Amino acid sequence: MATIKDVAKLAGVSVATVSRVINHSPKASDQSRQAVFSAMEQLQYHPNANARALAQQSTETLGLIVSDVSDPFFGTMVKAVEQVAYNTGNFLLIGNGYHVLEKERQALEQLIRHRCAALVVHAQMIPEAELNGLMAHFPGMVLINRILPEYASRCVALDDRYGAWLATRHLIQQGHRRIAFICSRHPIPDSTDRLQGYRDALTEHDIAVDEKLIAYGEPDEVGGEQAMTGLLGRGRNFTAIACYNDPMAAGALAVMSDNGIDVPQDISLVGFDDVLISRYLRPRLTTVRYPVVAMATQAAQLALALANGGPMPEVTNTFSPTLVRRHSVAPPAS
Amino acid sequence: MATIKDVAKLAGVSVATVSRVINHSPKASDQSRQAVFSAMEQLQYHPNANARALAQQSTETLGLIVSDVSDPFFGTMVKAVEQVAYNTGNFLLIGNGYHVLEKERQALEQLIRHRCAALVVHAQMIPEAELNGLMAHFPGMVLINRILPEYASRCVALDDRYGAWLATRHLIQQGHRRIAFICSRHPIPDSTDRLQGYRDALTEHDIAVDEKLIAYGEPDEVGGEQAMTGLLGRGRNFTAIACYNDPMAAGALAVMSDNGIDVPQDISLVGFDDVLISRYLRPRLTTVRYPVVAMATQAAQLALALANGGPMPEVTNTFSPTLVRRHSVAPPAS
Repeated sequence: MATIKDVAKLAGVSVATVSRVINHSPKASDQSRQAVFSAMEQLQYHPNANARALAQQSTETLGLIVSDVSDPFFGTMVKAVEQVAYNTGNFLLIGNGYHVLEKERQALEQLIRHRCAALVVHAQMIPEAELNGLMAHFPGMVLINRILPEYASRCVALDDRYGAWLATRHLIQQGHRRIAFICSRHPIPDSTDRLQGYRDALTEHDIAVDEKLIAYGEPDEVGGEQAMTGLLGRGRNFTAIACYNDPMAAGALAVMSDNGIDVPQDISLVGFDDVLISRYLRPRLTTVRYPVVAMATQAAQLALALANGGPMPEVTNTFSPTLVRRHSVAPPAS
Repeated sequence: MATIKDVAKLAGVSVATVSRVINHSPKASDQSRQAVFSAMEQLQYHPNANARALAQQSTETLGLIVSDVSDPFFGTMVKAVEQVAYNTGNFLLIGNGYHVLEKERQALEQLIRHRCAALVVHAQMIPEAELNGLMAHFPGMVLINRILPEYASRCVALDDRYGAWLATRHLIQQGHRRIAFICSRHPIPDSTDRLQGYRDALTEHDIAVDEKLIAYGEPDEVGGEQAMTGLLGRGRNFTAIACYNDPMAAGALAVMSDNGIDVPQDISLVGFDDVLISRYLRPRLTTVRYPVVAMATQAAQLALALANGGPMPEVTNTFSPTLVRRHSVAPPAS
């Protein structure tokens, strides 16, 4: 493999000049820059990023932890963060935490060991005290989807409780009183907050919360299908359903379609997140918009600014969700 | 921040012993291993992965390039590769190439600079000669979704042409003669191979290929919607559609539903890939199964074995797709 000496020889410059070019020193002239890059390409010379990172004591890697990249919601988050990394000449390193404490810890540990000075972390299971310690230790670490009171300015989150309240209130305003909730079984704040928003809206409108109308499942299509089957098994004594997310709503919709239950004529349905597929279900899904692209973009910009001491971007720490009205909600039949 | 000396002091061992424990040397005793790990945890000491990688001239990072992690097909691929990395104690570094030559090159360059000795690469745009050079240079590099004749044993791909042939033949066997094809507009082998499989099946059954029945779009729901709108705009003179992938089929289905066209009574529809959502569309989508989990798993195992000189796993270099019959295909109406 070619060495830095080979590059210097071919480019007709000193090794120090090659080093300057590689490290983007302003001292390198445009002419030598061009000669070095041309020699690097010809020799297939790849500067060792590890050695360089050590020498510079800096990084060109932005670390991101999500729950699961194969979930379309997190896929969108990854794409938004990747866009920021790409635009700023940084590279993205991704880990999955799967909402499992040990995996969240391990993914974070790996990013830190790879010297990601800028970190965007979705970690729902790591206890607050432990996260506080990490935030203190790593100034370029930013949390997404979770608010840590001690570091609120380095957190970008959504008001989940308000989102579920919006969805449930919309159903109540259409005249529904018997409203079910299909909830994620992951024991994370997103789940409990959304469930609480549903409870809040009911209570506020003097509707008693009926625990038999709350069903749980994995936060995907299969989980929605199972939760819906569970609800129907207990008797069809509800006229509307609010869901933890859109994939669960898609699963619930499929079960109703198979059982000749018309949405929204027989039962109204509201999702959460507004992922792409919600517009391609029939009926089109009424849902709560999670501005994940804006949030992930801000979190990534903030992490890079904190890590590199750049100018601080303007950041919204708590985003508010909005209702997106499509065709899956109607007044109750009777 | 704590140093290796602090760890050695707290653990009551020498710096050399700490180094042995960190580098998994068999010379470290279980007792010192425990003392060192406990001290590391107490001091929040994170061994520097870069320094260690340099010292060992090895890597614990598996690199993966996909087109776009936010596409559910690639999300599934990432998850499968991540599972292999996790099970073997490796960490995954991911880049997106977006089917754009410069981005594919840049993503690969970054993985190489981060010293990923094991690489799983989905690169459709990089020319064959350039890939041959890279394969020669990096013995732990494996291609997925593309066959490079000179390095066929380090490629894991699907017979796309056969898959589209299967889908089209299934429609012909149901009695269809006017069959449209909704194709990806990305200029990649996947697109041309699937289109060719459609042409093959028609020709084989003495059906003339009508170029006006081929419509193009981005390989997602929006692209499928646009292509479907284009096809209908030219007149509804077909009774069945084969699609490049399931998201495009979902987009086409939504347009037909909005226009009162019943699937499969009026028009039959076949997808490709068998991503999760295809089971949650109504009617359930008949599609072609792309065994992406098995393929990605084998590719990752192969890359790690090549990089580390481990025992070679058994690898299927060209996978065959299979037809999955659900409810979106019926004989033509008349």
